[in-house]
Amino acid sequence: MALRPRFDPEAHGLDTKFRLTKYTGLHGGACKVPNDVLNKLLEELVDGSSQYNGEQFLAAMVQSNMGIGLDTCIIPLRFGSLFLLQTTDFFYPLVDDPYMMGRIACANVLSDLYAMGATECDTMMMLLGVSSKFTEKERDIVVPLMMRGFKDCAEEGGTSITGGQTVLNPWCLIGGVATSVCQQNEFIMPSNAVPGDVLVLTKPLGTQVACNAHQWMEQKNDKWNKIKFIVSEEDVEKAYQDAMFNMSRLNRSAAQLMHTFNSHGATDVTGFGIIGHAKNLAKQQKNEVNFVIHNLPCINKMASIAKACGNMFGLLQGTSAETSGGLLICLPREQAAKYCAEIKKIEGHQAWIIGIVESGTRTAKIIEKPRVIEVQTLEDGTVQSVPPITTPRRTVAKHPALEHSKPLPISEVSQLNTQATILPVTEQQQLQTVETVSADVMHTQTLTHLTPVTTLQDGQQLHQVMVQDTQQYQQQMQQQAQFQNHHHQQ
Amino acid sequence: MALRPRFDPEAHGLDTKFRLTKYTGLHGGACKVPNDVLNKLLEELVDGSSQYNGEQFLAAMVQSNMGIGLDTCIIPLRFGSLFLLQTTDFFYPLVDDPYMMGRIACANVLSDLYAMGATECDTMMMLLGVSSKFTEKERDIVVPLMMRGFKDCAEEGGTSITGGQTVLNPWCLIGGVATSVCQQNEFIMPSNAVPGDVLVLTKPLGTQVACNAHQWMEQKNDKWNKIKFIVSEEDVEKAYQDAMFNMSRLNRSAAQLMHTFNSHGATDVTGFGIIGHAKNLAKQQKNEVNFVIHNLPCINKMASIAKACGNMFGLLQGTSAETSGGLLICLPREQAAKYCAEIKKIEGHQAWIIGIVESGTRTAKIIEKPRVIEVQTLEDGTVQSVPPITTPRRTVAKHPALEHSKPLPISEVSQLNTQATILPVTEQQQLQTVETVSADVMHTQTLTHLTPVTTLQDGQQLHQVMVQDTQQYQQQMQQQAQFQNHHHQQ
Repeated sequence: MALRPRFDPEAHGLDTKFRLTKYTGLHGGACKVPNDVLNKLLEELVDGSSQYNGEQFLAAMVQSNMGIGLDTCIIPLRFGSLFLLQTTDFFYPLVDDPYMMGRIACANVLSDLYAMGATECDTMMMLLGVSSKFTEKERDIVVPLMMRGFKDCAEEGGTSITGGQTVLNPWCLIGGVATSVCQQNEFIMPSNAVPGDVLVLTKPLGTQVACNAHQWMEQKNDKWNKIKFIVSEEDVEKAYQDAMFNMSRLNRSAAQLMHTFNSHGATDVTGFGIIGHAKNLAKQQKNEVNFVIHNLPCINKMASIAKACGNMFGLLQGTSAETSGGLLICLPREQAAKYCAEIKKIEGHQAWIIGIVESGTRTAKIIEKPRVIEVQTLEDGTVQSVPPITTPRRTVAKHPALEHSKPLPISEVSQLNTQATILPVTEQQQLQTVETVSADVMHTQTLTHLTPVTTLQDGQQLHQVMVQDTQQYQQQMQQQAQFQNHHHQQ
Repeated sequence: MALRPRFDPEAHGLDTKFRLTKYTGLHGGACKVPNDVLNKLLEELVDGSSQYNGEQFLAAMVQSNMGIGLDTCIIPLRFGSLFLLQTTDFFYPLVDDPYMMGRIACANVLSDLYAMGATECDTMMMLLGVSSKFTEKERDIVVPLMMRGFKDCAEEGGTSITGGQTVLNPWCLIGGVATSVCQQNEFIMPSNAVPGDVLVLTKPLGTQVACNAHQWMEQKNDKWNKIKFIVSEEDVEKAYQDAMFNMSRLNRSAAQLMHTFNSHGATDVTGFGIIGHAKNLAKQQKNEVNFVIHNLPCINKMASIAKACGNMFGLLQGTSAETSGGLLICLPREQAAKYCAEIKKIEGHQAWIIGIVESGTRTAKIIEKPRVIEVQTLEDGTVQSVPPITTPRRTVAKHPALEHSKPLPISEVSQLNTQATILPVTEQQQLQTVETVSADVMHTQTLTHLTPVTTLQDGQQLHQVMVQDTQQYQQQMQQQAQFQNHHHQQ
């Protein structure tokens, strides 16, 4: 699916001023009952155990056999060591395109299963609140569009809708239930992170910022006045379309590849922001680990907006609510780059290494000055980092700083303080930006060197990749330019 | 569980005027999107098939392998001929006791599984909308009460809550999802009715009438003025408590006994009233049958209220919405009375034979003048028909009309036009009101004669019961009284 054109109410027979997002008082993650309130409400029910946060509260009401309190519940069944995985979510419109709203609601529910590595959803149910404030005409146009979006997305996920409930409600409401019956080897308990693992994220952050900025722009309100000198209307419209596209994407390949690359567990990023969900995931770990996040891939320009708004979103603090966000996945260090390369091969979309797993006390943090990776959806419908530098790659090889770079011996590749990584190479990947991991920092780096190392049994060549830190490269280029200027002036 | 004392807001720290039902604009079944509207909304999704009504719409969106469009979807799984049964329902407060509201919401969801004869629910999820209009204090008192009610009821059903979603919403909202993974012999397809079957109902009708009447009484509004000469405040309060009690009861034994007595299928009675659900069930039948309903067991006095309101409820037309109603079950004729006796033995509650299955065109109707069976919850917490006559039973035997009554030969018992039926007799059942079936009418009749017929292998005695039509008896008594008066005056 490529980027969808802007939703035009008139083209659907609606008033040109129709906005689906007007049919609610709360949007996306904001409709959640605050964590601390839920905890309070649940106090008497949770039988003295307070290790669960609000989002997990119901899972905690009955102690699962597996001691898991994430969104998806895991129920051992009576038959043949099978398990039932089930999850539900529903919320209010956060975008104005009813079809996309349906897709997003569906992708958002399925994401909870995918976070468990479960890719086979047996059935979905649709939960629908038809706004009592819709005119009959609006209702007859909008509701089928939402339903169709939900249905199309479910079918894309290889499942189908077999039931549901529809009520009248002051606010428009949409959501669903996803259920999978599977064997134990079909899902991955999110509790096996070990120090040295790395964290991968499969979608950019900033969906709430994009949706809000778009509303401000439409309303030309005070908040728009605050950001209109930082971003153009085109930027905001693009970010909004990108946000819708990302929210409607399924994390299904991401879940499938968790098995291929031996993931140690994952969560999906939604209402509590990346740091909220990272903390939840950290709490579930068997080992004493901390998650440290260094990079924040964000929809292009959203970090700037967030900064301009005095951090009302908490995007760079990781607290900005997301809807139908990416999977945050723990992977063995040596698998992470391969995971990202493979997801790109399958989906065309980039995934990012954003952090590391250290020894610790089962919590999560974002480093003081995280690196923002700007992300956009290209015209071909793939999601990519915005190239940090436009210098043609040819010139890279000529840069003096690279003269001494040479392939590392394979034995050193898995060591922490190397700047090199190995990835399987396909024709499309001969020259491109790849991610790599170093001991202390993680940077998006520019591929500069490629050397065949070995050929695997299936004929796939493994290449050793020498990479050049982009920032460092930029600094060097600046220094060189200054030097040359200085030289010329003299 | 016995009848619960009236909910006292003050005793829970709430304002004495707190009413949970104020936190919605719609109640119970009324929150459903009308059938015809849903059908319209779904037209384009259902791929040309219009055999499904609104309630079934989502089941119809994907053609189930089993061709069933009832509330519970049945999904064949990938493993060992197992099936996934799943259902969801949610709605707004229709009673003011938050704890009971939680119980009712839970019982209502489970009822869909029970209608399939599925008694083992593997897991439930709770769907909760916390009213944005609650004060903090109200929220902190009311929401945990609702949750506890839901949880207690789930545990009573042998299942537990393992997940859910909580959002803020203008209206308070509660519901859930129930899921069962089971083998094919654990559920009963609701499609095997044959002519000659009879219909049994496991809970009285009139829940909506009772809830509405109670609100009118509290508000002392125009509608109350219309009914206050027909029913006393005590009547309405009692009916309201009875309605809450019945709505919070589980149909689990009813489902279990469907297997024991070879049920040919069932449905649960909810938002579309008994005739709506009877019609839905009739549509699903493999054989060309009609359902004809003769008796309407109703919460005591509700029929009178319904009549006084000019049939605004449609109670006697069978269209009055019910919430968490009884199962409407097709049973082989020879099993129906045994079914009712057994459910009474297990639960203490009465069930009623209310109609028959004839050859027909897969539809359902209520006869022109259905017999209303008044039903009440006794102090011992059992639900029973209100005895139609208070004459001590001793005198019955002396009545001249009975002098010629004698047991029928067993061969005639299963014939249509007999007034006799067979039922297993326990000590408690030596003398009581039983139901029986005749070809043209079905009456609640008074037991007048008991003759041992045979002893089964398990030592249980089958007795032949001679019954006397109550109405006929009352007429005879009146005639006798008139005759005596006349005689005395002479």
